[in-house]
Amino acid sequence: MLLILHPHIDENSAAFQQTWAYLAALPNIRVQKHIVQGKAQRLTEIYLIGDTAKIDRELIEALPAVERVVRISEEYRILGRHKDERRAIGFEYNGIQFDQDRLHIFAGLCAVDTKENVEAMLKALSAQGQRCTRMGAYKPRTNPYSFQGHGKGCLPYTFELAGKYGIKVIAMEVTHEDHVEQIDTCLEQTGRPTGVMLQIGTRNTQNFELLKAIGRQAKYPVLIKRGYGIPLTESLNAAEYLASEGNANVIFCLRGMHSSFAAPHRNLVDFAQIPVVKRLTRMPVGIDPSHSIGGRDRSPDGLLDLFHATAQGVIAGANLILVDFHPEPLKALVDGPQALRLEELPHFLEDVQIAREAYEKRRRLAKTAMTI
Amino acid sequence: MLLILHPHIDENSAAFQQTWAYLAALPNIRVQKHIVQGKAQRLTEIYLIGDTAKIDRELIEALPAVERVVRISEEYRILGRHKDERRAIGFEYNGIQFDQDRLHIFAGLCAVDTKENVEAMLKALSAQGQRCTRMGAYKPRTNPYSFQGHGKGCLPYTFELAGKYGIKVIAMEVTHEDHVEQIDTCLEQTGRPTGVMLQIGTRNTQNFELLKAIGRQAKYPVLIKRGYGIPLTESLNAAEYLASEGNANVIFCLRGMHSSFAAPHRNLVDFAQIPVVKRLTRMPVGIDPSHSIGGRDRSPDGLLDLFHATAQGVIAGANLILVDFHPEPLKALVDGPQALRLEELPHFLEDVQIAREAYEKRRRLAKTAMTI
Amino acid sequence: MLLILHPHIDENSAAFQQTWAYLAALPNIRVQKHIVQGKAQRLTEIYLIGDTAKIDRELIEALPAVERVVRISEEYRILGRHKDERRAIGFEYNGIQFDQDRLHIFAGLCAVDTKENVEAMLKALSAQGQRCTRMGAYKPRTNPYSFQGHGKGCLPYTFELAGKYGIKVIAMEVTHEDHVEQIDTCLEQTGRPTGVMLQIGTRNTQNFELLKAIGRQAKYPVLIKRGYGIPLTESLNAAEYLASEGNANVIFCLRGMHSSFAAPHRNLVDFAQIPVVKRLTRMPVGIDPSHSIGGRDRSPDGLLDLFHATAQGVIAGANLILVDFHPEPLKALVDGPQALRLEELPHFLEDVQIAREAYEKRRRLAKTAMTI
Amino acid sequence: MLLILHPHIDENSAAFQQTWAYLAALPNIRVQKHIVQGKAQRLTEIYLIGDTAKIDRELIEALPAVERVVRISEEYRILGRHKDERRAIGFEYNGIQFDQDRLHIFAGLCAVDTKENVEAMLKALSAQGQRCTRMGAYKPRTNPYSFQGHGKGCLPYTFELAGKYGIKVIAMEVTHEDHVEQIDTCLEQTGRPTGVMLQIGTRNTQNFELLKAIGRQAKYPVLIKRGYGIPLTESLNAAEYLASEGNANVIFCLRGMHSSFAAPHRNLVDFAQIPVVKRLTRMPVGIDPSHSIGGRDRSPDGLLDLFHATAQGVIAGANLILVDFHPEPLKALVDGPQALRLEELPHFLEDVQIAREAYEKRRRLAKTAMTI
Repeated sequence: MLLILHPHIDENSAAFQQTWAYLAALPNIRVQKHIVQGKAQRLTEIYLIGDTAKIDRELIEALPAVERVVRISEEYRILGRHKDERRAIGFEYNGIQFDQDRLHIFAGLCAVDTKENVEAMLKALSAQGQRCTRMGAYKPRTNPYSFQGHGKGCLPYTFELAGKYGIKVIAMEVTHEDHVEQIDTCLEQTGRPTGVMLQIGTRNTQNFELLKAIGRQAKYPVLIKRGYGIPLTESLNAAEYLASEGNANVIFCLRGMHSSFAAPHRNLVDFAQIPVVKRLTRMPVGIDPSHSIGGRDRSPDGLLDLFHATAQGVIAGANLILVDFHPEPLKALVDGPQALRLEELPHFLEDVQIAREAYEKRRRLAKTAMTI
Repeated sequence: MLLILHPHIDENSAAFQQTWAYLAALPNIRVQKHIVQGKAQRLTEIYLIGDTAKIDRELIEALPAVERVVRISEEYRILGRHKDERRAIGFEYNGIQFDQDRLHIFAGLCAVDTKENVEAMLKALSAQGQRCTRMGAYKPRTNPYSFQGHGKGCLPYTFELAGKYGIKVIAMEVTHEDHVEQIDTCLEQTGRPTGVMLQIGTRNTQNFELLKAIGRQAKYPVLIKRGYGIPLTESLNAAEYLASEGNANVIFCLRGMHSSFAAPHRNLVDFAQIPVVKRLTRMPVGIDPSHSIGGRDRSPDGLLDLFHATAQGVIAGANLILVDFHPEPLKALVDGPQALRLEELPHFLEDVQIAREAYEKRRRLAKTAMTI
Repeated sequence: MLLILHPHIDENSAAFQQTWAYLAALPNIRVQKHIVQGKAQRLTEIYLIGDTAKIDRELIEALPAVERVVRISEEYRILGRHKDERRAIGFEYNGIQFDQDRLHIFAGLCAVDTKENVEAMLKALSAQGQRCTRMGAYKPRTNPYSFQGHGKGCLPYTFELAGKYGIKVIAMEVTHEDHVEQIDTCLEQTGRPTGVMLQIGTRNTQNFELLKAIGRQAKYPVLIKRGYGIPLTESLNAAEYLASEGNANVIFCLRGMHSSFAAPHRNLVDFAQIPVVKRLTRMPVGIDPSHSIGGRDRSPDGLLDLFHATAQGVIAGANLILVDFHPEPLKALVDGPQALRLEELPHFLEDVQIAREAYEKRRRLAKTAMTI
Repeated sequence: MLLILHPHIDENSAAFQQTWAYLAALPNIRVQKHIVQGKAQRLTEIYLIGDTAKIDRELIEALPAVERVVRISEEYRILGRHKDERRAIGFEYNGIQFDQDRLHIFAGLCAVDTKENVEAMLKALSAQGQRCTRMGAYKPRTNPYSFQGHGKGCLPYTFELAGKYGIKVIAMEVTHEDHVEQIDTCLEQTGRPTGVMLQIGTRNTQNFELLKAIGRQAKYPVLIKRGYGIPLTESLNAAEYLASEGNANVIFCLRGMHSSFAAPHRNLVDFAQIPVVKRLTRMPVGIDPSHSIGGRDRSPDGLLDLFHATAQGVIAGANLILVDFHPEPLKALVDGPQALRLEELPHFLEDVQIAREAYEKRRRLAKTAMTI
């Protein structure tokens, strides 16, 4: 049994002393104190080890220093949806609310290439009333000799243009802790015209040092992609690394799994696991249909596979969509072939809207059906 | 280059003679005749090998014996959607039309266990106006000592009850060619109160001898499941085995892929490939959410993962749903834990309906968007 | 707890009556009789259900009708290596002994194409003192329009030539129960100049109807390939299907797993599981390096990847090797590119010999090391 | 076509000027200069784009500034084994030579836990004449709340004890560039009693920022593990990241692939790809049987699966073995169950020796066989 104490509790306080004395007197129980010291937060936890089955949980929860009692077998200590935990994680960033109920679309450029393309993209988004985007400055590439993104050099104009077109949040991949500092410095210098959601790519899902460094700051929320080659539970544990250091403003993003059964798609789309992530954790769940599908093939019904995959995610309750557009896909430096064209943006948004309405209707129906 | 001649063409006919003479005179081209003799159909094909790039396709297509010209690299000769092939396969069986546009729900028992359960199931379907069902008499099981289905013994009452409740088509797995004969005999003896769609399970997707035997009969349409452990293209080739013997009334059914990334689901749901199958072939595409998900876990939004997976298939254009129900899931002899309960049927149907309407709306929108 | 009675025991015998009376009197135990009726064998089993922990196993084993007591959780009832089961399955066929200790090489043609090639192959084997081979008459092919083997037409000359060159066992794939009859008839007609080991290919590993049909005959031993796309345990259960019908002369053969990590090999070689199969079951374990590797690439040390994979299997205790040779690989109708050339046969055999000696040396060392 | 110029060549030199002039005059060819600036090395490359088929390669190679000519389609620019590249990479570190011909065993502790265990391990290695070991100070763990290694705190005694027992190289995982500095500082302070081979774990195979940082130092060689969830080629590209920054003293290590077909092993052993890595690149190839197998199951022949997997790697030419031992496996903080016991070390080494001798014998045989 794990007791999470109130944050920043003083061990000399009466509340702590009283609690400790009670626990120490429990028969056949060993009491062990554990300090979780993130840079931003200090948590005191107490483990009760031994014959805990007979312990009266309510009595323990009533102890003055105790905030919460968790069965120690429960995983994802902070981000998890434990038995007695009905609230999802919700957070506001730069005026936008993220949680397991809402849906946000982050259409944008996979990689920033030219200022002109950034502006064209943002202008198109603005015309459609969008307030979020994706823009990559740091691009991890399989081949060391490929284009790796413009890095911090493109940040000033990207941020300024985002501000000009009313974009509030840019999802931007970071692959090194220095990138967070570069982003923060540039945002500061440009007067914070927009906000940034730090993105952890699939190749870094288990780069624990990066996760810990990112988790130690609470200024920027984090979107973490599912890792490929590992079970879902390991990716959820990776997200927990962020929270364990103090930052629980985390969105978990599905992006398809590498598989010999995926062809002709790039990955085997895994969006059926949206409800799984929502059940196991309290994180909002995103999808990345562009990297899942990886092409522009079209079904005989006139819809791109990419549109279908997106709709599949949305109708199952996705909370965030990362999707690649490009003014000139064939000239894009990264992942051009899968990018949608700017003139397809209105259709895409309308298509998503249909799926979203269907999801909301299904959810209402389920509420009714269950009460019968 | 492959020339498919008109079916049953006589090699002594003027049409054939004239065609052959023309082809034989082509420079730098070797002409090879190939007879595809299914039991039900005799096709003559002519291969042109060599310097075919310079051949005028239109001239060839105008030859009197030629029905169709296909570039030889094109796969799935009969079921495939070739460049010049816009028609999907559509067929009617027992008063019901199957094609790539419609949607049919085959809710039913994974395995027939008792007459009472069969009747309870059919009655519930009838009350909801359903005309199709699934019912398994022959169950292939991983373990040789497990229950393997009641076999032909349960056919008479199953068919009679289906007739009583107005069911027109039962999807029923067969694992041996003898089963087709048993089904046919029993239907005949009971006065054909219903119809049967023969189902090839995933363990038999590449049981080519069975496929050939089934393909040689044209009385019953066939639903073939995607095989696990093989790329999609190999499963489509397996479907082509049916057609190559003469029976092109084939429905292709996705059922999730075995994967270490699937947990906690049984399989990794592969319904994002619905548009792929529709693009590569002209077959209607089914989904089997019950065997894909394999459980009754529920998302915090109140919907079972099974409902979400189904909706994902439908919103991407699925044409057929196989789904397991059971009057008493905990007592079911096969796959009980994943079965829906009879009282959930109306909710399930309504949930599917919402997704279907969304799909149709999306399709209409795509037509408009493309004409702009 | 499962009690396997002596085979063919009569339920009216004193032994049975006495045994049953004893069991029926056990407190808190339900006794259930189960007849396993293969075509060739009738086994009576008795399940004890309930509070079996307190039962004295030795007393039960001493009952007159009881042959063996098995904890019911144990899998692979007949082929499995249960806790109290130290003997591996060993059988002799046509003068050759197969078990978990010996090693046999089945080099030969993937598919019989011409009589000349069959003779060239057999002559080369004979020159090297080989007594086994592989020769395919019935070839299941992914594409229905590919060459499917010469079928029964090639059996007479294949068998006669095998006899001429002193080959005792031909491993030959069958995909339909009729093929067994064709083989048997032809062997009879040609005077049984050689023997046949029936081979179940990976596409039919879970073709349970075929397995049951093959299992009902005891004349020919069976080699079953691991199925792709399923866990090892399911393939072992497939082998158990053969035994459950009466034929326990079964060899289990590894052949690599389909995987996106296999390239540039055709499959991901799974020969590290040889000791697993030997531990879980009593079957001899074969390997198929040709279909695992699927090419003739060579390491800078001068050895083909195919040789390396073979050596890996042998040094871990493989009991049988299936390997493709061809007099003219580039002209082979099936799987030519992976075939070894006849002139490579002596090198191959010598290479295998080195690995086998290393295995035997390792095994002797292990015996010594464990007794210390 | 890619021309790699001599390192550090001056663009004002006559050699460069003369070379450039010649290239610029080639008809239908565009000439493009590219500077590869690692921290440690500056390479000038010239791409010839266009109608290169007609270019006389020998003339180009004879140009004064040109070191080497590579067809641009060739991958792994520095570590790759290109058509005209017969030398493997060989390097000496701290008195030990590593290349594609030799074999070194790195037996040791998965994670340093106590000084006593470190000493017991090193003493046992010393008694067997071993000069290499593995010892983990920084342990990336799936769960953020698990033991993560003692970090830099355990370095001083680990290094001093290694020196005391004559160990020349410790393979040690690093997960952050700071760890390299910590290791370097501690080695300096303790008087460099031993050496370190930096190890990149499978979770960081595509942590390109870490690879680049490690690649920028040339003091310590690097062992990089194959990444899971990615094709082999992507992992080889990851190794190339190290080389692209200046450090080509790289060993590539196979460690099994995550797969639903691996059970009961932890991973599906991939050692059949040793010859593939040797063919595609010039790196020595290591194996990690402990993490591949993940347990201590034993075959009926008396050998642990772990021993069999190791022998499979060695007989196919492995150049390095990472293997976990522990004085008290059941008390180990990390991966105890898979560890071998100290008293098993002599048997393990002798078993490896048998496999190695078999490999050498096979290699000699291959040389003879090819010259016939």
